[in-house]
Amino acid sequence: MTTIHDPNLRGFASDNYSGIHPEVLAAIAAANDGHQVAYGDDVYTKRLQDVMARHFGEGVEAYPVFNGTGANVVGLQSMLPRWGAVVSAGTAHINVDEGGAPERVAGIKLLTVPTDDGKLTPELIDREAWGWGDEHRAQPLVVSITQSTELGTLYTPDEIRTIADHAHSLGMNVHMDGSRISNAAASLDLPFRAFTRDAGVDVLSFGGTKNGAMLGEAVVVLNPEASQGLKFLRKLDMQLASKMRFVSAQLLALLEGDLWLRNASHSNAMAQRLRSGIEAGLADGSIQGVAFTQPTQANGVFATLPDGVADRLRSSFRFYDWDAAKNEVRWMCSFDTSENDIDAFLAAIARETTAG
Amino acid sequence: MTTIHDPNLRGFASDNYSGIHPEVLAAIAAANDGHQVAYGDDVYTKRLQDVMARHFGEGVEAYPVFNGTGANVVGLQSMLPRWGAVVSAGTAHINVDEGGAPERVAGIKLLTVPTDDGKLTPELIDREAWGWGDEHRAQPLVVSITQSTELGTLYTPDEIRTIADHAHSLGMNVHMDGSRISNAAASLDLPFRAFTRDAGVDVLSFGGTKNGAMLGEAVVVLNPEASQGLKFLRKLDMQLASKMRFVSAQLLALLEGDLWLRNASHSNAMAQRLRSGIEAGLADGSIQGVAFTQPTQANGVFATLPDGVADRLRSSFRFYDWDAAKNEVRWMCSFDTSENDIDAFLAAIARETTAG
Amino acid sequence: MTTIHDPNLRGFASDNYSGIHPEVLAAIAAANDGHQVAYGDDVYTKRLQDVMARHFGEGVEAYPVFNGTGANVVGLQSMLPRWGAVVSAGTAHINVDEGGAPERVAGIKLLTVPTDDGKLTPELIDREAWGWGDEHRAQPLVVSITQSTELGTLYTPDEIRTIADHAHSLGMNVHMDGSRISNAAASLDLPFRAFTRDAGVDVLSFGGTKNGAMLGEAVVVLNPEASQGLKFLRKLDMQLASKMRFVSAQLLALLEGDLWLRNASHSNAMAQRLRSGIEAGLADGSIQGVAFTQPTQANGVFATLPDGVADRLRSSFRFYDWDAAKNEVRWMCSFDTSENDIDAFLAAIARETTAG
Amino acid sequence: MTTIHDPNLRGFASDNYSGIHPEVLAAIAAANDGHQVAYGDDVYTKRLQDVMARHFGEGVEAYPVFNGTGANVVGLQSMLPRWGAVVSAGTAHINVDEGGAPERVAGIKLLTVPTDDGKLTPELIDREAWGWGDEHRAQPLVVSITQSTELGTLYTPDEIRTIADHAHSLGMNVHMDGSRISNAAASLDLPFRAFTRDAGVDVLSFGGTKNGAMLGEAVVVLNPEASQGLKFLRKLDMQLASKMRFVSAQLLALLEGDLWLRNASHSNAMAQRLRSGIEAGLADGSIQGVAFTQPTQANGVFATLPDGVADRLRSSFRFYDWDAAKNEVRWMCSFDTSENDIDAFLAAIARETTAG
Repeated sequence: MTTIHDPNLRGFASDNYSGIHPEVLAAIAAANDGHQVAYGDDVYTKRLQDVMARHFGEGVEAYPVFNGTGANVVGLQSMLPRWGAVVSAGTAHINVDEGGAPERVAGIKLLTVPTDDGKLTPELIDREAWGWGDEHRAQPLVVSITQSTELGTLYTPDEIRTIADHAHSLGMNVHMDGSRISNAAASLDLPFRAFTRDAGVDVLSFGGTKNGAMLGEAVVVLNPEASQGLKFLRKLDMQLASKMRFVSAQLLALLEGDLWLRNASHSNAMAQRLRSGIEAGLADGSIQGVAFTQPTQANGVFATLPDGVADRLRSSFRFYDWDAAKNEVRWMCSFDTSENDIDAFLAAIARETTAG
Repeated sequence: MTTIHDPNLRGFASDNYSGIHPEVLAAIAAANDGHQVAYGDDVYTKRLQDVMARHFGEGVEAYPVFNGTGANVVGLQSMLPRWGAVVSAGTAHINVDEGGAPERVAGIKLLTVPTDDGKLTPELIDREAWGWGDEHRAQPLVVSITQSTELGTLYTPDEIRTIADHAHSLGMNVHMDGSRISNAAASLDLPFRAFTRDAGVDVLSFGGTKNGAMLGEAVVVLNPEASQGLKFLRKLDMQLASKMRFVSAQLLALLEGDLWLRNASHSNAMAQRLRSGIEAGLADGSIQGVAFTQPTQANGVFATLPDGVADRLRSSFRFYDWDAAKNEVRWMCSFDTSENDIDAFLAAIARETTAG
Repeated sequence: MTTIHDPNLRGFASDNYSGIHPEVLAAIAAANDGHQVAYGDDVYTKRLQDVMARHFGEGVEAYPVFNGTGANVVGLQSMLPRWGAVVSAGTAHINVDEGGAPERVAGIKLLTVPTDDGKLTPELIDREAWGWGDEHRAQPLVVSITQSTELGTLYTPDEIRTIADHAHSLGMNVHMDGSRISNAAASLDLPFRAFTRDAGVDVLSFGGTKNGAMLGEAVVVLNPEASQGLKFLRKLDMQLASKMRFVSAQLLALLEGDLWLRNASHSNAMAQRLRSGIEAGLADGSIQGVAFTQPTQANGVFATLPDGVADRLRSSFRFYDWDAAKNEVRWMCSFDTSENDIDAFLAAIARETTAG
Repeated sequence: MTTIHDPNLRGFASDNYSGIHPEVLAAIAAANDGHQVAYGDDVYTKRLQDVMARHFGEGVEAYPVFNGTGANVVGLQSMLPRWGAVVSAGTAHINVDEGGAPERVAGIKLLTVPTDDGKLTPELIDREAWGWGDEHRAQPLVVSITQSTELGTLYTPDEIRTIADHAHSLGMNVHMDGSRISNAAASLDLPFRAFTRDAGVDVLSFGGTKNGAMLGEAVVVLNPEASQGLKFLRKLDMQLASKMRFVSAQLLALLEGDLWLRNASHSNAMAQRLRSGIEAGLADGSIQGVAFTQPTQANGVFATLPDGVADRLRSSFRFYDWDAAKNEVRWMCSFDTSENDIDAFLAAIARETTAG
């Protein structure tokens, strides 16, 4: 098989449009050859447990899975009885972007609340966290938050701790969708543990794919009392890789050293460069009519554009509308986004917003 | 990440204990760099459609997925209404080895029949194919066969055609679990099409993982009228890869040229070498007390051993019991099994069966 | 078994706190004795088809079930592929009061929108009716409305027609939760058909229990093209009564003559008597501090009370808080609510709101 | 509504072709009028707990449901984690007659074993009771037996005790489908408790419908440690009656006094009269070619008939084929089967088997 795509073309559509970081690919190769026990009883998956313990502390359990939807659904299912419900933001990936997998595969009811910035608070949680003991109401037993959020925003460790304390006081546990957790850690300049386990998060979906892996996430059980049967659920939810060593090797490539941090820091920095460049352009008039709709705290920039600009930009750079009715767009940066990519995009934004 | 396993150690436990064929790994690398549309709208996945059409004929649709359970469940679900049932052999992987995924994820009732060799026949199908229109009975609407079977046996094209004609005459469609379809094609010395689409199979789980891929299977819809909503089902069943180009690239590496055939022919040949070596040993007395329980038609050898032999052999070579009560074992060969591996194993069998 | 409850005690908690109308009980007795084919192939269930056709027109199909949740889930499931979603008001019974049955039993994703009065509009529907063809989004294929609503309000036939036209123009079908459809028909002074089939509703949950039956609802398919497999779904969803003649006989008792109308008109009138009495009390000062939060268009009255009043009233009359944080209560009238009941309650309201 | 069926016509098709015993109907009437709290918080449902405790001992919990499928599915689901499986006879109602409800609604995998007489034994259980801890295998955690069986046979208390001891020793719990448990108790001449709780059964589906109720079964938790969340599961599985007092009243009518025993003893006696009559006919030659395929231990008679006899008999008496290929039929007696019914049927059998 030969290369049939242009390996130099990049855009701002999604951090999963990028490929595999060379060190991750090298790790796959390093884990190759010879026979290893299938389904996770291999040395790389064992090593992953140690590395996760280094990041999250002793006693955590990591279950590699294929993708983010899998991590979320398997993790949440392990936290809930059949009558359980999950309180989440309306914008949560589990609610809007997983084709109903939580409901259909895991029989989970989602109780969603609208937010401005994709972030829950105790007050927002309380809108749906009630009715325990009443069998007519799906029982709210888990709060799920996303870090960094689907809107490119971040929870501080204190905010997470406040949510977790509140949830626990209600008898609920806390799940974190960490599809972009490395971006959060890089932006917060904190170890993972500081805003997950130490802040009261019980079960984590740890994301690898969007930070340079080919594919690979892990359900990380931070509080074993909050999760049951993960081994069985991963299998029956069809998320158990036979040649799991290659999923684990990718996560090891990211987590043994600092690749996770280098990749995430870089994509965050590229998002900042994009935002700063636009802000400078707006200040000096070289860019016009762009407004930011969210803070840029991780690797995504959310903005509104003048009419028609988005489509003209897309003739050269791929990206998605976020809310087409408002001309709101989402620009995602990735580990492989280059300064040149940003600068060329800024030039195009300047050109298109000042044209005519 | 560095290599921490012995890349020279191989056994006979499973064809998914092996790693990635170098050409497959090269294909992953060739598909890397630059941005490609996620979730399957990339050039490699498009190319895969063409290559599948070359193998199976115009009009087929290929949906790459992560693993074999995913392929089977997504494919079967696309073939059935919510009240549907699947007739399969009791030994079928969907029945015994998928943790109940068909029932739990897809709500599918399995109607199983006992077989001697893992193969269905019209007569065996008829034991469970009845009761249409009666809402008390899960409606038998699909026959699922495995090629090559979980017992290392093969259906001839005529046998498949007979089953398919029978199923179709009853208003049922035919699914094939082709986790080891390449081994079947190599053994039959036939193109895939001859014993699938041309023999009346409607939907196929095409296996890549056990034939040298890192991970990657595809649901191949051979008869589009027999399958609905695959695009949606793959997503909601959590089998949609974001960086799908890398799954497709693996399948392309196998299928664009003849790697699929080289790998499968080799593993089949190694199984024959093992069987022939034992037969020769039995004939000349250098091996004693071994009996074959199934024909060796693909890459697996099933045999009974004298008491204690299995455990002694396992001190040097990994493999599984098939039916411990009968001292029956399963020996699987893989694309990377070497002649030396076989010869060393034969020597050990000779030693252990004639010891004492 | 002897009577161990007070048959003269009534309250305002729910229309399902009441018992069986004597004519319904007589119908059960009339259908008794002798053998009838089980599971719906009896003469009473057949007769029910004719009576439903009289009310809804030729070609409709009625499937008796046990309860309202069953009717809703079975009906909706018959309208949707496995990837389908339902747009409903946030207050819909299917969303808040069915323990997650739609999600858990039927794998249905609910896409809910907030409303003031429990009623959808095309604009509200449009908030969630989008994204067809995108497998990441649960596909919005059904709009579900409740008539009369969970808030005691009513859709006019024109409003329903507008919703149905809008839904159909989007490729969606329309489900009506008619748990209190008789109250709606009585209040609108229209035959059922005028605001269901003739207004574009495709599948209806027809309610009997809250209008004087012991138990019994029916999924009524008004547009057979919008529903598939109901016979099978009713069984596998565990809503198929073996001695179905007794469920059908109850529905016949209501629908063959005008019992449905007499019961519903009476409960509506009692709600009006309650509202009018309060309004008169507020006007003359004999009642103080009560405010209505919804129009009273069927058999429920929604109001806010001064602090402490609800609990004091409950020492003599059962009823539920609707929104305890706002002192909002719900008072439901039933077929057996008497004028004396209302007048005694009004007197108590006057007493408690003017006390101290 | 008036009677439109022939209340004097009875057959041998099923014990659910019969109607409501007059004392049960009287109980429904006695529970009528006035308001009672819905969804089970009524005095009749409370009383039912006491009556169940009288029959089964202190500490049992009874959850009334609508039908037998509901009782089985809700009960089994409460006994199993999401990865659980149930070992049952292949002929079990849960396997062959519930439209796949256990799999589809509750996500339960059934592991079935063939039997001659519908009865499991430890040896038969062991065929499927293995593989604990292996996530590839659905985990066998419950044994389900039917008493009396679908084949009209009975377990002795010792047989049940042996099964329960075996199951418990394997870490499995025991479910009994007691759809016809009263027939079993009457035939064994034992209180329910002797062959359920005292014999080690953990959760019971207690049947009312087939023994003279209009509709009504109960999940009876005999060992609360073996069942979790029944309250929630009953609701989300759509088996929670709003006017539950009328379901409970029926069960009270059966269980407060000895109606359950009178009804069951009578239907058993009628089955014996049928069998004895045939045996006498065979002995004196007035009946020819009839052979029994099962012992007659409850209210069903299973027999093979000469060619053509079944269809000729059915011109006057309804009954079902059991295995048409073998000319095997099932004749069920009910609480309302009369001696005259039996004698007329015997005369017809004599006539048809000696004709020509």
